[in-house]
Amino acid sequence: MTDAAPSPAASSLALPTPYLLFVGDVAEPGYAKTAFGLRDWAGDKCVGECAVTEDAVRIGLTRMTPAEAAAAGARALVIAVANRGGFIPESWRASLVGALAAGLDIISGMHVRLADVPGLAEAAVRHGRRLIDVRVPPADIPIASGRKRAGLRLLTVGTDCALGKKYTALALADAFSARGIDCDFRATGQTGIMIAGGGMPMDAVVSDFEAGAAEILSPDAAPDHWDVIEGQGSLLHPAYAAVSLGLLHGSQPDVVVVCHEPGRREVLGAPGYEVPSVEEVVSLTLALGRRTNPSIRCGGVAFNTSHLPAAEAEALMEQESRRLGLPVADPMRRGPLFDRLVDACLA
Amino acid sequence: MTDAAPSPAASSLALPTPYLLFVGDVAEPGYAKTAFGLRDWAGDKCVGECAVTEDAVRIGLTRMTPAEAAAAGARALVIAVANRGGFIPESWRASLVGALAAGLDIISGMHVRLADVPGLAEAAVRHGRRLIDVRVPPADIPIASGRKRAGLRLLTVGTDCALGKKYTALALADAFSARGIDCDFRATGQTGIMIAGGGMPMDAVVSDFEAGAAEILSPDAAPDHWDVIEGQGSLLHPAYAAVSLGLLHGSQPDVVVVCHEPGRREVLGAPGYEVPSVEEVVSLTLALGRRTNPSIRCGGVAFNTSHLPAAEAEALMEQESRRLGLPVADPMRRGPLFDRLVDACLA
Repeated sequence: MTDAAPSPAASSLALPTPYLLFVGDVAEPGYAKTAFGLRDWAGDKCVGECAVTEDAVRIGLTRMTPAEAAAAGARALVIAVANRGGFIPESWRASLVGALAAGLDIISGMHVRLADVPGLAEAAVRHGRRLIDVRVPPADIPIASGRKRAGLRLLTVGTDCALGKKYTALALADAFSARGIDCDFRATGQTGIMIAGGGMPMDAVVSDFEAGAAEILSPDAAPDHWDVIEGQGSLLHPAYAAVSLGLLHGSQPDVVVVCHEPGRREVLGAPGYEVPSVEEVVSLTLALGRRTNPSIRCGGVAFNTSHLPAAEAEALMEQESRRLGLPVADPMRRGPLFDRLVDACLA
Repeated sequence: MTDAAPSPAASSLALPTPYLLFVGDVAEPGYAKTAFGLRDWAGDKCVGECAVTEDAVRIGLTRMTPAEAAAAGARALVIAVANRGGFIPESWRASLVGALAAGLDIISGMHVRLADVPGLAEAAVRHGRRLIDVRVPPADIPIASGRKRAGLRLLTVGTDCALGKKYTALALADAFSARGIDCDFRATGQTGIMIAGGGMPMDAVVSDFEAGAAEILSPDAAPDHWDVIEGQGSLLHPAYAAVSLGLLHGSQPDVVVVCHEPGRREVLGAPGYEVPSVEEVVSLTLALGRRTNPSIRCGGVAFNTSHLPAAEAEALMEQESRRLGLPVADPMRRGPLFDRLVDACLA
């Protein structure tokens, strides 16, 4: 489908880095989650930040113009904010055209296509730069072959959407690296793709190619190399299970980590649907994942306890760990519980 | 994604009928399966056939020009053959342009987009006609809501691809109608869509919208109305399970019929993958389907026994029916076994 896209061909599998983080005129930090995520998880890929108004949100990097960023080595401007409505206002356009003129590509995860913003496509052609919409999958994704690939793979899965599958994968990849393990974080959503500097927007892939997209996202690797793959959706979500199953089959994970938010009762966007139990998701994931990797196992459980006090969270995780017979940890609260989860994944 | 398509907006959910079946210069009946399928399953939607050479394959309808077909009530020319390579040769173009001039729309299930065939897009605009690629899903498919819809639904599922899910659904819909039951065949692939005069090309839908596409394919209906939905792929196919699960969740079937080809050992296109057992597919389908319809049940099993002599096929089906505790029938061999399958679906 992507060959009909109006933007120049641009694969999200490999983005130009490092980045200049663009926040436009957004003053509300809640709309700058992508910028903070990039700062926190991909600081080595960020050379500075850029705004069009003095009172725009501060990310904590050096403010610079696109030309200064280019001189400092930046290769792309990332639109690192999402305003209400998801559009690109006219007040940003001069900066974006200026970035192209300064030799930067532009990367966006917004719904609107960059080429549909008046003036951008012409400016990109004029300056020989690329407009990269990370929501657009690369062209020519193959049908999955099911062939077992070399290397080791971990996939985060969830009892629901939006409860920490990306952060869990990032934290595990960090922990693996800290132990000297050769490992890559493999991103499957737009924020993750910007953090990783590449990836596959799994929810935008045509369903016939879903498993094939997951296969090319984590190619053959050395026998002791780990791909830590960001999960999407949930096998029991009435809207998104197709994404989750294609990703599971194509990823062929050796290890899955089930992500869960204690206390969440109802599935996001599906009134009347109860959040399934961790046990149910473990057993369904292993049953389905066995099809492409018979040695799949569950490494443990990641809890999102951001709404609980530390002591309460820890007690709950200890208790659930005993009940489930699996390590349970919150990847945002490092410590012995998290170390035990990492141990179990690598066991 | 479809809003970027070069062809005029055209929804495959409702096609203009009746059809003129176009076979071009194709002489080999094996390449005219769509034409024969339309003749056999949608004879009431076909006013005639049209060729560009005298020795082209004969479908058994009246040969006529596009103008004669239009005069006889046809509203669209259907490209009802697939040549090797899947392209539209230059020798067909005059007929296709002639059909547009005669007031017919053109419907194609080929991989090439009609608007990409030189001259067609301009002719369509000139004559105010539509070019309809049934592989292109309609725009604005919603995210699935999971809301339970009124009416009854049957979905055919399979132990593999290409073993009779479409024919089983068509035969069951025929049998339901013959018993006076209000029912619609709901098509999910290009041939089925042409037969039904509409439908949803499920494998071409972006995965985030897969279940949502299945939801709009079989909307709310009267409490005793049946939608008989054509299945796609297989939950255990390493490439296509995403399509199958999205279709299962969005269809919310009350009844599933598992389609199987006895003797097939290896999954199509996936070397090394054994075809799963019928029991395995029954239990996995019910486990997953329960999420959006807790009262899902298996109505029985459809065997594709086209490679077996009649007596041998019947003996095998009797034996498997006893073993599985479910009706087993070949929908292409009508008789008591098939009647029993229909009874069980409606029970």
